[in-house]
Amino acid sequence: MPEFRKDPVVDRWTILSTERARRLQHDAGANERAQTDPCPFCAGNEAMTPPAVLTYAADKTDSRITSWSVRVVPNKYPALVNEGCWIGQANGIYQAMNGLGVHEVIIESPEHVVNVETLSENQLKKILHAYRDRIVQLRNDKRWRFILIYKNQGTQAGATLEHIHSQLIALPTVPKAVHEEIEGAKGYHDANGRCVYCAMIDQEIRDHSRIVAEGELFIVFCPYASRFPYETWILPKRHASSFEWGSKEDYVDLSRSLRQTLIRLNRRLENPPFNYLIHSNPLAEVENAYYHWHIEVMPKLSQVGGFEWGSDAYINSLAPEDAARQLREVAF
Amino acid sequence: MPEFRKDPVVDRWTILSTERARRLQHDAGANERAQTDPCPFCAGNEAMTPPAVLTYAADKTDSRITSWSVRVVPNKYPALVNEGCWIGQANGIYQAMNGLGVHEVIIESPEHVVNVETLSENQLKKILHAYRDRIVQLRNDKRWRFILIYKNQGTQAGATLEHIHSQLIALPTVPKAVHEEIEGAKGYHDANGRCVYCAMIDQEIRDHSRIVAEGELFIVFCPYASRFPYETWILPKRHASSFEWGSKEDYVDLSRSLRQTLIRLNRRLENPPFNYLIHSNPLAEVENAYYHWHIEVMPKLSQVGGFEWGSDAYINSLAPEDAARQLREVAF
Repeated sequence: MPEFRKDPVVDRWTILSTERARRLQHDAGANERAQTDPCPFCAGNEAMTPPAVLTYAADKTDSRITSWSVRVVPNKYPALVNEGCWIGQANGIYQAMNGLGVHEVIIESPEHVVNVETLSENQLKKILHAYRDRIVQLRNDKRWRFILIYKNQGTQAGATLEHIHSQLIALPTVPKAVHEEIEGAKGYHDANGRCVYCAMIDQEIRDHSRIVAEGELFIVFCPYASRFPYETWILPKRHASSFEWGSKEDYVDLSRSLRQTLIRLNRRLENPPFNYLIHSNPLAEVENAYYHWHIEVMPKLSQVGGFEWGSDAYINSLAPEDAARQLREVAF
Repeated sequence: MPEFRKDPVVDRWTILSTERARRLQHDAGANERAQTDPCPFCAGNEAMTPPAVLTYAADKTDSRITSWSVRVVPNKYPALVNEGCWIGQANGIYQAMNGLGVHEVIIESPEHVVNVETLSENQLKKILHAYRDRIVQLRNDKRWRFILIYKNQGTQAGATLEHIHSQLIALPTVPKAVHEEIEGAKGYHDANGRCVYCAMIDQEIRDHSRIVAEGELFIVFCPYASRFPYETWILPKRHASSFEWGSKEDYVDLSRSLRQTLIRLNRRLENPPFNYLIHSNPLAEVENAYYHWHIEVMPKLSQVGGFEWGSDAYINSLAPEDAARQLREVAF
């Protein structure tokens, strides 16, 4: 059974999950096996994963001979386990909690696609719908206080399987990074009477230098204090706190903005490893005036070193204004 | 000129340093060149670095034909520049400061050593003295509020040159990660009337399961909430807030503890890439009751992925109790 352990100095959790070690052992020879072993995420190999918690049927117009288009399955080597309630245990000055949570994999294509360029806008829309449907379902369970959806693409970005997928983790606590972002947004709102992300969007549109693209409902820009070269954010232009309450039109426009952003990065950087994360409000509240959900895309071009670990400050060698210009200029 | 830029939501700085991009371009072909190009850190190539700010003479008993044993030089591609004072500039809702700071390299051997195993305990002691001497010198300049000393060993840990070295960055601000640690320690002290690290040491000695080694003056253990497999901390057993005010005996004992720790990791993990960082008090105050300086050693065995970026929580597949047992069992 996994376990949460709290750092006694800073408010940070570690999830101790020895189950994950089995995955690492399993993956140790993954590079050699990749060409010959069957992929557990490919159509036809459904029995290699735990039973699906969500399946979208394939379109009738789809020429491929598969019955599904998107599948969501429990992670076979979960970091957390969905069992019972969240119970603490003191160990002298230390504090542990049982490893309660949900860890799922969103399989984003029945075919062995490894690059988002291959996916249609319509397929990407289905993937966003799957994210939303899982969050809407899981938020009924009052044990979960935060849900994180993220994609690791490429081994340098933390991926262990190349077949295109994202992951979902539901947590019984609001983790440190989210807590800080929420508190920061609240602080700005208290001081200035408006959402800090809405203020950013206004200024980015006025400055224009960091804008990558502007759709009808979403805006794409490289943030002013980008930690990494080519870091790119996608925000709904209209204030909204939670990803999962978007309109039909929102997901259509977002699938276009997200797909184009990833293609721009692919073409500019020759298919870099990357992470993207959905930053959305904790589940306790659907909507508020201060938090504004968004997606952060971070290409993994260099290693994080001692300076970053010791300071949580980042040395970035590319101005976001240059990154945005380069990404704007990518030809489709 | 580099620039600090502040994230408008969380209290985190990015250092925008396009100067560093030249280093990256220079390093792009580093692997191919490594065998043939002269190493700028080797004895005889002193002209390839900026002039030294500190040089220790070689021992007379030293059989090697070099005049120095440790050299500290300004970083040739510095992230920050030591010029003028720290001046802010508002840009709408954003805030920038000029890129003021010190960025130095501690060259830890005149020979082309790439692994700490090759260094003697005496050489490691000199390196610790060099760290101390630079901090003691730089803290006279009241523009600096924090000094971070760190080592990146191996490209996966962020190193770009293999010749054994560490880095020093002096900052005109206390960065986010340090601020959080200081506030956490202060909070524990306010609530419990004692230093949280002293409390940890007491409990680790009592529990014993996470102890790697115990010297006369220093203790080495894998922390309870280890973020990474084999994460290992080294703490002075007697309360002290600042690394640079150690006694002669402290540096002797620390050089032994640090060297043995790195050898244990090398032997157990076959020379892994790693970072180590000195966590020491901000410069405003030499000594206080709540902060306890220490060294954190973090082998880089896997990639940080989207979950970690989105939560600042860590999934660790190896219990620190198991890591400590394995490291204890390493034969010398």
